[in-house]
Amino acid sequence: MLTHAYGFVSSTSPCSPTQIERREPGPKDVLIDIAYCGICHSDIHTARGEWGKGHYPLVVGHEITGTVRAVGADVKAYKPGDRVGVGCMVDSCGECEYCAQGLEQFCDHGIFTYNSRDQWGQTTQGGYSQAITVQEHFVFSIPDAIAMDEGAPLLCAGVTTYSPLKRWVQPGMKVAIVGLGGLGHVGVQIAAAMGADVSVISHTMSKQADGLALGASAYYATEEEGTFKRLANQFDMILSTVSSTDDYTSYINCLNKTGVMVNVGMPASPVDIYIRALSPRRTLQGSLIGGCPETQEMLDFCAEKGVRARIETITGDQITDAFDKVVRSQVRYRYVIDANTLGQR
Amino acid sequence: MLTHAYGFVSSTSPCSPTQIERREPGPKDVLIDIAYCGICHSDIHTARGEWGKGHYPLVVGHEITGTVRAVGADVKAYKPGDRVGVGCMVDSCGECEYCAQGLEQFCDHGIFTYNSRDQWGQTTQGGYSQAITVQEHFVFSIPDAIAMDEGAPLLCAGVTTYSPLKRWVQPGMKVAIVGLGGLGHVGVQIAAAMGADVSVISHTMSKQADGLALGASAYYATEEEGTFKRLANQFDMILSTVSSTDDYTSYINCLNKTGVMVNVGMPASPVDIYIRALSPRRTLQGSLIGGCPETQEMLDFCAEKGVRARIETITGDQITDAFDKVVRSQVRYRYVIDANTLGQR
Repeated sequence: MLTHAYGFVSSTSPCSPTQIERREPGPKDVLIDIAYCGICHSDIHTARGEWGKGHYPLVVGHEITGTVRAVGADVKAYKPGDRVGVGCMVDSCGECEYCAQGLEQFCDHGIFTYNSRDQWGQTTQGGYSQAITVQEHFVFSIPDAIAMDEGAPLLCAGVTTYSPLKRWVQPGMKVAIVGLGGLGHVGVQIAAAMGADVSVISHTMSKQADGLALGASAYYATEEEGTFKRLANQFDMILSTVSSTDDYTSYINCLNKTGVMVNVGMPASPVDIYIRALSPRRTLQGSLIGGCPETQEMLDFCAEKGVRARIETITGDQITDAFDKVVRSQVRYRYVIDANTLGQR
Repeated sequence: MLTHAYGFVSSTSPCSPTQIERREPGPKDVLIDIAYCGICHSDIHTARGEWGKGHYPLVVGHEITGTVRAVGADVKAYKPGDRVGVGCMVDSCGECEYCAQGLEQFCDHGIFTYNSRDQWGQTTQGGYSQAITVQEHFVFSIPDAIAMDEGAPLLCAGVTTYSPLKRWVQPGMKVAIVGLGGLGHVGVQIAAAMGADVSVISHTMSKQADGLALGASAYYATEEEGTFKRLANQFDMILSTVSSTDDYTSYINCLNKTGVMVNVGMPASPVDIYIRALSPRRTLQGSLIGGCPETQEMLDFCAEKGVRARIETITGDQITDAFDKVVRSQVRYRYVIDANTLGQR
């Protein structure tokens, strides 16, 4: 069936109205009427071809909330009317060592929500649209406590920060979140909800009031002289949400001697690291979204703890402009597209 | 009391006979007649001033085995005649968060076996000598199964590799040891004894037979074209014992998607790392020797499992030449100094 969407015809085109085909739900599929879709920086990198070849025409978006319209015969967990979400993935092999552990994001045959090739050979098209058909395993339940618009960014920004924080944080730990953007502002809330003593490390002090309101107990700016010296050996964990290649060793030196720094930002170029800074027993770790079980766990956690994305709701016609504002860090803190504005339902 | 030793008067001097003062044992001290001391690459870096200022005249050496000559009134664990060892540390505060966890190597007030300032303001002098006085907490019991000469290198090379392997290895894991030198040849044995499927990754194939004899099931040379491609995504853990700054991202890419690379080599200059290689969920970790409880645990493990250093025993007069051979990777696999050759007992 056809659905209204906003997409890109090339790496330099604006985001324009289009229509895309969605498959009729198969036995294990859920057909979802999309309510909202967040704008993630990954959408911009992909649409603009900055992360490799974009398969145009392309509709991006992987922070999707909506309502179930129809389900296939074998679908057990959902029924029409249910409040659901879809994140960064729509398929995986289901059989490998990673899928067996609920770590579908590491499956060699994982299919991402957009710009991947699906099992029918079609390019997957994302959530800047009014409907999507997704197999049940990759559909999540949105708890009633979470509004559809504020919940949408949790499907990527939420699980991307929840997964490493869940892996490392114990109550009372000193945790620093580097960068207070789309990811960081959710990360601060999650870390605080886990009982950590949270600091924000940003480039400037401009978002200090927001950082403290979101749950941080301290806020530091790297542009201020002496910040790295002051913070040396201070943190049990640092979660970096930025893509800058600067200051990696300086951040590592802000860890205590057995501390952990996890990067969910993705610098495109190599960074210089003094391996000696990792001694005594410091850890540098990557992290990539989260698996299906962890995504549902994150949604339930956020519902219980009151963690929500801070959003600005926009229309389809505002997407092109919104991309530029995200790149300029002018969004507070996530744009969410109202799917009703993408075309006549 | 005075004891014979071999030491350095400057960063460019040979290792020459000297005599150094050892303190009479206090209530908690153990006075040890040294039997053997291994030559660690750290000794060379320190003696030559490559790791910062050397406090000359200086006696190095921190892979010490010997026999208890006398103990202080409060010493509980040792008595004259006991077979004991001393490693890289001789003191720490005993009260901080790290000391409380048996991680004395991370104590801010830790005193290393040589080239540190001790609590009396004296430069600590190491094991290229015939006697040493060390407080009981930093003395370890050498199990009867371990010969004094083969056991000496375990006090540094053994615990340096045991600690990260113990932290990560589960039976059946695929583990690569990078570098088959003083550390690596012990690491291969320990990893194999822990039930890992061990590979060696070396620069050349020259030590292949030794690597396999020590317990590895496979041996790879990075100078052979295609090695890194062949090994992509293959290992659960990589333990790097080399100081080269080359190929870091290539090694990281040899980890599976949740694999761990631990570095116990210490490159002096920064290395280029593609942070994206750490995604999906790869880990890069530092490690520094091990704490006191872990050092004793390692000795007991090695005794039980038959892990021993492969050594070449030398005299005091051969130390200067031995340093050059270590730097040229010509030792198989650890030089051990016979303390009887350092002077008339």
